Amino acid sequence: MSVTAPDGFIASGVAAGIKASGAQDVALVVNSGPEDVVAGVFTSNRFAAAPVLWSQQVVADGSARAVVVNSGGANACTGPEGFADTHQTAEFVAESLQRNGFDIGAGDVVVCSTGLIGERLPMDLLLGGVEAAAAVLVAEGSTAARAIMTTDSVPKVTRVEADEFTIGGMAKGAGMLAPGLATMIVVLTTDASLSSEVAARSLALASRMTFDRIDSDGCMSTNDTVVLMANGASGRQVSEKEFTNYLTQACADLARQLIADAEGASKEICVSVRGAHTENEAVDVARSIARSNLLKCAIHGEDPNWGRVLSAIGTTSAAFHPDQVDVAINGVWVCRGGSVGESRDLVSMAAREVVIDVELRAGDSSADIWTNDLTAEYVHENSAYSS
Amino acid sequence: MSVTAPDGFIASGVAAGIKASGAQDVALVVNSGPEDVVAGVFTSNRFAAAPVLWSQQVVADGSARAVVVNSGGANACTGPEGFADTHQTAEFVAESLQRNGFDIGAGDVVVCSTGLIGERLPMDLLLGGVEAAAAVLVAEGSTAARAIMTTDSVPKVTRVEADEFTIGGMAKGAGMLAPGLATMIVVLTTDASLSSEVAARSLALASRMTFDRIDSDGCMSTNDTVVLMANGASGRQVSEKEFTNYLTQACADLARQLIADAEGASKEICVSVRGAHTENEAVDVARSIARSNLLKCAIHGEDPNWGRVLSAIGTTSAAFHPDQVDVAINGVWVCRGGSVGESRDLVSMAAREVVIDVELRAGDSSADIWTNDLTAEYVHENSAYSS
Repeated sequence: MSVTAPDGFIASGVAAGIKASGAQDVALVVNSGPEDVVAGVFTSNRFAAAPVLWSQQVVADGSARAVVVNSGGANACTGPEGFADTHQTAEFVAESLQRNGFDIGAGDVVVCSTGLIGERLPMDLLLGGVEAAAAVLVAEGSTAARAIMTTDSVPKVTRVEADEFTIGGMAKGAGMLAPGLATMIVVLTTDASLSSEVAARSLALASRMTFDRIDSDGCMSTNDTVVLMANGASGRQVSEKEFTNYLTQACADLARQLIADAEGASKEICVSVRGAHTENEAVDVARSIARSNLLKCAIHGEDPNWGRVLSAIGTTSAAFHPDQVDVAINGVWVCRGGSVGESRDLVSMAAREVVIDVELRAGDSSADIWTNDLTAEYVHENSAYSS
Repeated sequence: MSVTAPDGFIASGVAAGIKASGAQDVALVVNSGPEDVVAGVFTSNRFAAAPVLWSQQVVADGSARAVVVNSGGANACTGPEGFADTHQTAEFVAESLQRNGFDIGAGDVVVCSTGLIGERLPMDLLLGGVEAAAAVLVAEGSTAARAIMTTDSVPKVTRVEADEFTIGGMAKGAGMLAPGLATMIVVLTTDASLSSEVAARSLALASRMTFDRIDSDGCMSTNDTVVLMANGASGRQVSEKEFTNYLTQACADLARQLIADAEGASKEICVSVRGAHTENEAVDVARSIARSNLLKCAIHGEDPNWGRVLSAIGTTSAAFHPDQVDVAINGVWVCRGGSVGESRDLVSMAAREVVIDVELRAGDSSADIWTNDLTAEYVHENSAYSS
C-alpha cells in the first residue's frame, strides 16, 4: 500500500517533536528514478502558505525527486521568514539525501506543511526530523502516511494495480475539506513512464473530478497540495487516457477516505445533481446543497428535510424551473415538481451513507459532491483546536 | 411599542391551533388610514413561498390595508394548492375586516407565513384564527409580535420617535438569517405621510444596510418578507432622506435583535471590513468571514484564530495584497501585513460581543456584517426542528 507501492519509491515517517503529543510529524517520500517527473495541484486560496508558494516553483519545470511533509504547523501567514524556513527545509532535505547517495538539489524538493496557521515552524526540530527521516527510508512498511496526519483519526492510503504499472498514494485531511481542494496533503506515486505534460493534465483532471468534489465544511485551506511523482521504473509507457483513468481511481479512493474521516461527522452525504444545463451548474447546485448548515443539521438528525434542499438550490443561478425540480433522499422522491412528493415516512436514514438526488430537468449534465453532516462533535473539535 | 406605536394602526395576535404547542400563531396588522401606502422587500430565493408570490403582487400597486402573518407553517414548496391557500387567506381577511366595518379587498392584504417548508397549511384552523384576530384588533397591547415567533425565544419590536411622526415595527427570525434577507418576517408601520415611491426606495435602502447585513448561518429562506405600511395619520409630510434615516434606525434595531436571538448562539460577531476597493467587495469579504464554520467554531471556543479569518478572506476575489492585510480581534491587531501581529494572549473574548476588524488597504469602502458563533446548541436545535 501507500506511496511505496510502485517500484522505485522509498519513504519514511518519524517523530520530530513538532507535535506536542510526540506523534510522528515528518514524512519523506523519495523517487529513486530512473525518471523524475512531477506534477502538482495547489490551493486557490490567496493566502497560500509558504510551502505552497515554494512547491509551485518546484513543480513548474516538471521534475522533482522528493516530497517532505510536516504536520504540526502549516507555515501559513508567516511572511518572508516563513518562506525562508521552507527554503531551508528543502535545502536540508537535499543535503541529507546527498549524504545518503542521492543526486538531488533543493529545487527538486516539494515541501508541504499542515497544522495551525500563523505560527513559525520550530526549525531545529523539523530539520532534526528531516535528517532522521532521510536515514530510515524504506521501500516497504513506512509510516509516512501516519506522519502527515493532523486531526485525522486514521492514515489514508491507496494502491491501484494497473496493466503493468502501479499507482500508490497517501492523504491527510479531516477538516476544511472544500473546493479549490480540501485541506489536504496528497502524495501520489507511479512507476509508469509518462511525460511531465501528461502528468500535469492527468493530475488536474483527476483532482477536479475527485478532491474538488468533496466539501466537508465549506472552508478552503491555505495549504492544499496534491503532488504526483512518476519514475518510469516499470518501463511501461502509458497513454494519457489510460493513466488518467487509473489516477482518477486512486484519487477517488483517497477522497472518499477523507470524507469518511471528516471531523466529528456521523454521516457521509452524496449530493447527486442530474439534468443540469452545464456541468458547472450541476456542481454549483450540488455545492450549494452540500454547504447548507441547516440541511447538514437535519441529516444529522436523520430528518429527510427536503425543504432545506430546495432552499439551497433556490439560491443558485443555475437553469431550472422551480415547479419542475425533483428531490429524492435515499431513493424516496420526497419532492416532485418543487412540491410535496412521496411520504417522508418512507425514508430510512439510519445508515451512515445518505444519498440526495436532485433532478433539475434543464439539460444533460450532472455532478456529485460528497459532504458530511454537521454535528456537535464538529463544533467541539473546532472550538478547541488551537487552545 | 411595536406596530401599533404610530397613530392609526391596530393589531392582534391569537392562538389558532396551527402550532402544536398551542402558542399564538396568527397575527393581524391593520392600517386604519387615512392613507394606505405599502412597500415590500422579499426573498431572492427562487423557491419563493406562495405568500411571497402573492404579496409581491399586492404591494406592486403601492397600496394595501392589512398584513396577516401565520407561524407554524411556511406554505413554501406547496404548489398551486399552496398559492390557492394564500389567496383564500387574503380573501378571508378582507371579508372579516369588512364585517368589522373596513373598506378592504383581498388585493389589499399582504400575507406572510413562516415555519416548516413543504407542508400545506391547516386552512380551517388558519381561517378560524383570522376571524378571531379580526375581532380583537387593538391600538395598544396587542400580542402580534408574539404570534409571529417560530424558534425565537423573545418577541422583537421597535419604536422610533421622529419629528412629529413615529415608526413602529415587529420582527421574527432566529435561524436562516442570511442575505437576500434573513429568515425573517418584519412588519413596519408609520403615521408619516409619504408616497409609495418614497416608501419603496426607503425600505429597499434601509433593508440593504441592515437586514441584508446579518448572516447567522448562511442559509436563505423561501419566505423572507419585510413590509412597510404608511397612513399619514400624523399629517406630517416627510422628505425621503429624513424618512430613510429614521426607517434605517428602526430596521437596525430589529436586525440586532434578530442576531441577539439567533438559534443556539453564544456570541454576536461584528465583522467590520475597511479599506475595500468597493462597498460590494467589502460586503463580499465580510460575508466570507461571517460564513466560515471553522472561524465560527473558534469564536465559540474564545480562540482568536486569525488564520481562519485570512483563510476566508483568501477565497474572495476582492482587491487586496495578501501581505498588506491587517486583522484585529476585539481591538488587538493579531495579524499585521498578512502575518503574525500582536500576541493572541492579549485578546479577551469573554464578552458576548466579538468584533473582527479587517483592513484591506485597497480603497476607501467599508461594510459591517453581523453574525453568530456556531455551537452544539445550533446543531441540536436544527437537527430536531421538524421531527
